[in-house]
Amino acid sequence: MRCWTASPAVTAPPNSSRALKRLNEAGHLTQLTEDELIAAYFAPLAGDAGLRLSDDAALLRAPLGRELVLTKDMLVARVHFFSNDPPAAIARKALRVNLSDLAAKGAEPLGFLLGLALPEDWTTDWLGAFAKGLGEDAARFQCPLLGGDTVKTPGPLTISITAIGAVVPGKMVLRGAAEPGDLIYVTGTIGDAALGLKLRLGATCDQDWIGALNEADAAFLLERFLLPQPRLALKDALASNAHAAMDVSDGLAGDLSKMLRLAGLTAKIPAANIPLSRAAREALRLEPKLIEPVCAGGDDYEILCAVPLAKSAAFEAAAQAAGVMVSAIASAAPGDAPPVFEDREGRKLIFARPSFQHF
Amino acid sequence: MRCWTASPAVTAPPNSSRALKRLNEAGHLTQLTEDELIAAYFAPLAGDAGLRLSDDAALLRAPLGRELVLTKDMLVARVHFFSNDPPAAIARKALRVNLSDLAAKGAEPLGFLLGLALPEDWTTDWLGAFAKGLGEDAARFQCPLLGGDTVKTPGPLTISITAIGAVVPGKMVLRGAAEPGDLIYVTGTIGDAALGLKLRLGATCDQDWIGALNEADAAFLLERFLLPQPRLALKDALASNAHAAMDVSDGLAGDLSKMLRLAGLTAKIPAANIPLSRAAREALRLEPKLIEPVCAGGDDYEILCAVPLAKSAAFEAAAQAAGVMVSAIASAAPGDAPPVFEDREGRKLIFARPSFQHF
Repeated sequence: MRCWTASPAVTAPPNSSRALKRLNEAGHLTQLTEDELIAAYFAPLAGDAGLRLSDDAALLRAPLGRELVLTKDMLVARVHFFSNDPPAAIARKALRVNLSDLAAKGAEPLGFLLGLALPEDWTTDWLGAFAKGLGEDAARFQCPLLGGDTVKTPGPLTISITAIGAVVPGKMVLRGAAEPGDLIYVTGTIGDAALGLKLRLGATCDQDWIGALNEADAAFLLERFLLPQPRLALKDALASNAHAAMDVSDGLAGDLSKMLRLAGLTAKIPAANIPLSRAAREALRLEPKLIEPVCAGGDDYEILCAVPLAKSAAFEAAAQAAGVMVSAIASAAPGDAPPVFEDREGRKLIFARPSFQHF
Repeated sequence: MRCWTASPAVTAPPNSSRALKRLNEAGHLTQLTEDELIAAYFAPLAGDAGLRLSDDAALLRAPLGRELVLTKDMLVARVHFFSNDPPAAIARKALRVNLSDLAAKGAEPLGFLLGLALPEDWTTDWLGAFAKGLGEDAARFQCPLLGGDTVKTPGPLTISITAIGAVVPGKMVLRGAAEPGDLIYVTGTIGDAALGLKLRLGATCDQDWIGALNEADAAFLLERFLLPQPRLALKDALASNAHAAMDVSDGLAGDLSKMLRLAGLTAKIPAANIPLSRAAREALRLEPKLIEPVCAGGDDYEILCAVPLAKSAAFEAAAQAAGVMVSAIASAAPGDAPPVFEDREGRKLIFARPSFQHF
């Protein structure tokens, strides 16, 4: 099939000027061929190696003595993001949720493939901004575009990214390998994105805290929903120290439950241990019931990991050196019960919906 | 983000019986969690290695001394297939169009990742048949499922597959490396799928040839549209002998034009040289104008390649040994003009739409 990918040995220069000219003349373009669209928008993202997205497949020379880590996430408008989100933010989120998986596995990004199903009302402005955002993050996280496929869809914008990373053999950090006594850490702050989503949906929610939150806090939470921060800086600290890790995408409660269940473990988590942003603390002060979306909402894209006690000091030092805040929230213990979140009085928090399900 | 992938070191058995039970009770299931859906339908496809799709990323130990070939194709219902196609055929086509790319590059399949955006009206019967078809082809072509992501969509069924293959370093067959004097070959027969699509759309087409075609020929053409045959058996013959190759997905005329343009070449193709099935010959006898969809329609998924004269005998022998029919249709010559297709009297065939554009 016609997908477009980085080719290592093509001599002719990309014909992007012609494609761009047609773009500018037509303004709104379903007449543009896929080849022209690729030349104009995506070939420039293929990186410094001067490669051109003009073959049927990408050729990846994997680093010697490394294993490959592969992850794939699909994002659908109106399910994972809002159709009217800024196109650059949509692109960046689509890449970053994949990079977040690589980070959690202790893997170094090598590149990614982009599948893009565009609705018929796309415009050159939209696609230009999308490609620009994508290119900026590809450069920022040193994860070049290797290839992909562009199709039209009668449905919502759909983005499918496959990211490829590398690890030292045997060093991929698994989800299911926590051990009893391990300290459970999370990076950054938890719950911001779930609160940001509530703010974004605010008009239909009719919740007092939304009106009471100050502008800066609201903007912070909205931004946290819009744009995850993949914790790639932590990958070496994880690979060296963690028994197990995953990223928190479906809510801390549900994801921790998944990680511990695979290892036959459980945990008690004092909610007070969960690292909160100033904005999330303020929202919780205004509306204590928000503890549920904080603990069980989705889209944090922070890393959850299990580190043996003996390595916790080294892990914390490495995280600090990497500039990533980490917080120990609990200790893993043998047991089949789902992890329990407790309030300050030691009462179990009951969540109506313990895990966010995009699906 | 939560994608699901093969994990190399998980001890607990997949909980597929529980998930299946819930499936059977509920019949139509949006309540099923993604984890249960994966355990029930996709974990069994992860292959003999006993891997379970329960980590955030797949771990691929690439064969020593090999380069990786990566390809990604997205298929959207009502664009690339019909929503009411048999689910097993949809799954198999989605995998096979990617395998067709690997075959054209001379690559051996290593595995694939599946992105599946399911509309809300999916049923357990549908998904079961989809997974069964996918699993059968994964086994047939020795290309196991490594991981993926399952999401819901308010739009049409969308499938995004990334396939990974391996080649001896330097041996990926490029699209743009044909040389003057090369013989241009195609595999199998050309145009069947484009005619099959016309048959499938028949009710709205009102074309006499459709009614006149016998049942067996019609069934053959419909099947050729529904289910491509990836020419993986030819991969070694290509890697050893071809200067350039690509698969024919957007029509022979357009794809040949792309391949030759990259190399600064052109060609004259007597239409009589194009290998046709009995059914396509019969359709052309009934309606000579069908020469355009035969030459310029899409979905052939045959391989187009350029082989130096000195290697043509070896290539043909290797193809015969592999059981793949190959036909030399032209010779490549220096020049910038698009390739020209000629009728029996040497007149240039003019196509209204020289290349099929899914996009």
